[in-house]
Amino acid sequence: MRPVSVVGIGQTPVLKEHSESLRQLGARAVRMALEDANVDDVDALYLANMLGDELQGQKHVAALVADEAGLRGVEALHLRAATASGAAALRVGYLAVASGAADVVVVAGVEKMNAPGVTPVLAKALDAEREVPDGATLVSQNARLMRWYFRAYNPPQDALAPFAVIAHRNASRNPLAMFHKPDLSVADVMDSRLISPPIRLYDCAPISEGAAAVVLAPASQARTFSDRPVNLLASSVATDRFRIEDRDKPLELAAARLSAQRALQQAQLAIEDVNFFEAHDAFTIMTCLLLEAVGFAAPGEGWRLAEGGDISLEGRIPLSTMGGLKARGHPIGATALYQVCEIVLQLTGRAGDNQLPDPRRALMQSVGGAGVTVITHLFGLQNAA
Amino acid sequence: MRPVSVVGIGQTPVLKEHSESLRQLGARAVRMALEDANVDDVDALYLANMLGDELQGQKHVAALVADEAGLRGVEALHLRAATASGAAALRVGYLAVASGAADVVVVAGVEKMNAPGVTPVLAKALDAEREVPDGATLVSQNARLMRWYFRAYNPPQDALAPFAVIAHRNASRNPLAMFHKPDLSVADVMDSRLISPPIRLYDCAPISEGAAAVVLAPASQARTFSDRPVNLLASSVATDRFRIEDRDKPLELAAARLSAQRALQQAQLAIEDVNFFEAHDAFTIMTCLLLEAVGFAAPGEGWRLAEGGDISLEGRIPLSTMGGLKARGHPIGATALYQVCEIVLQLTGRAGDNQLPDPRRALMQSVGGAGVTVITHLFGLQNAA
Repeated sequence: MRPVSVVGIGQTPVLKEHSESLRQLGARAVRMALEDANVDDVDALYLANMLGDELQGQKHVAALVADEAGLRGVEALHLRAATASGAAALRVGYLAVASGAADVVVVAGVEKMNAPGVTPVLAKALDAEREVPDGATLVSQNARLMRWYFRAYNPPQDALAPFAVIAHRNASRNPLAMFHKPDLSVADVMDSRLISPPIRLYDCAPISEGAAAVVLAPASQARTFSDRPVNLLASSVATDRFRIEDRDKPLELAAARLSAQRALQQAQLAIEDVNFFEAHDAFTIMTCLLLEAVGFAAPGEGWRLAEGGDISLEGRIPLSTMGGLKARGHPIGATALYQVCEIVLQLTGRAGDNQLPDPRRALMQSVGGAGVTVITHLFGLQNAA
Repeated sequence: MRPVSVVGIGQTPVLKEHSESLRQLGARAVRMALEDANVDDVDALYLANMLGDELQGQKHVAALVADEAGLRGVEALHLRAATASGAAALRVGYLAVASGAADVVVVAGVEKMNAPGVTPVLAKALDAEREVPDGATLVSQNARLMRWYFRAYNPPQDALAPFAVIAHRNASRNPLAMFHKPDLSVADVMDSRLISPPIRLYDCAPISEGAAAVVLAPASQARTFSDRPVNLLASSVATDRFRIEDRDKPLELAAARLSAQRALQQAQLAIEDVNFFEAHDAFTIMTCLLLEAVGFAAPGEGWRLAEGGDISLEGRIPLSTMGGLKARGHPIGATALYQVCEIVLQLTGRAGDNQLPDPRRALMQSVGGAGVTVITHLFGLQNAA
């Protein structure tokens, strides 16, 4: 396999609502990434979008965005893995370049969610036969995990709230983030509305709109496109039993553990080699479980990383450094591409007020459903790889 | 890139309706293919499904089918390119094995279409902003192409009907086909109901249900799985302008031409090296245009291949030998996987009453929308490759 680099990035602001259509918004991010990489054309577009079928009535979105972006004759495929769809597209872009089938590809994600009926559409990430009829939603499934976590480990009632506080603090210095609330407090989180007990409003990522894209090329050619290419060191997908009640140890997030192990093995790295973690922090409980699954904390101890400041920008393992899904926003199909853009900004010293001191390697995870599909990617500055 | 082989196939019958759920039907095809390849486990499942979002309320289908098929921990991604979704999944399975990222993968497709409201859901393959508001459907777009074709070339009014007749004759000897009407005549086609003038009922593939799957492995290891492996010689995707009115020469199907050219170039073959063609014959006009686009006939002459018998099983370039989309049936996400299964049966001498004499290489195309996305694959018996 050929080593693969990220040689261009493009991200629109994450907003509650964008005025552009799905096609236009996606094409804008694609063109931004092409411009950043200084390329006019690519071999392929791999596009992620989860909700366009119902919310925009669009099922052929990859070809539609390719056309709108002016990419003529290009390969265009649409990737999905529920709420991990963006990372699924990145995975396929990686395979295309690593295999030699393509040289330069663009991977993009777009989502417009500010539409009536978004909640039942999101619930289609669950099993329509065995989960949804019981009233399950993505929120209620995460609420079950959170109840089980508190029952198993008995942490303080506000143990997870600092995850939200730190995410909002990071987002407040990211001009593209949806929220800018630097002073959100643990008390604000604990006073917020109960959505699905014990999950409160500030435990959840928001409904968002946005698009982001990255250009991939062979690492050996990367410097023709970019002064500071970032290598994609590993790419891995794992799944767990679909229903959480079918899992032996649901708090262990077996797919997160497995895909992280596979990715670290591919890159021949240990978890200690990772300097920061762009996590799929759609719910505070998911953040905590991911930290434990990938090995940053022992089981039952993930919440202590937030309490102690280890995950802040100055800490041992900075988390979701530009605000994460929680506060940068979570336009689903685009989310993983925002994560890649942010990782590239950090590794190349362009993260502005949120810049980490000399980060070398980043771990990124995306979660489809309630821990069903977990996709892990590892990145490193080309010199550090 | 490593050469890739097909080492196992599985196909359920194509029916108007299957009693199993989407999950169950997909998993059945996966298990059939694994059994055929004599493997218990795989590295990945790449799954195609186009309509499950709306018709079954399922958006996380790859992980769902993986779970139902007993594939624990496996990579599972969901691929889409509208009506070419099955070939999109095959493309990604090919990239995974060719790159070395995976050794043994299963590529599957499943579709259940016998549900209220299927027609407007199918129309989401078009542009919801610029085509659907004018009342466009997949049928009406193909009807436009057919009107333009007759205006441009002025063939006999029943010029395309023999495509349907030959497809039904082939399907009648395929026990898995949806239709068994060996005696369908040109007159029957021309007397059938007008759906969207000049397209009649028998110009169209039916609404169908089914699932099919194939196992891919590195060609170098193929004989550990199968006595008669078939090599996947090339894989290529191209897109055209999304709206047919934006195309300079809409009857040329530029994406079909381009993806066929790229595939032939990858395999270092000429069109004359191809022994049979599994085409995306969802409409008789599409069959005709594809024959012209890939170079089996000159522009305006494709219909003569049906009239003269060149595309029958005994002809020069047998077409859709097991009945094609037209008469085997067209369960969309599964269709391309049925095509692969049928190609493997032909190349390995297991095509029963439809067996071609000593075929060596096959061309397969899948079309998303009205010629927007066209995916081409080439296959050859391992010795012939």
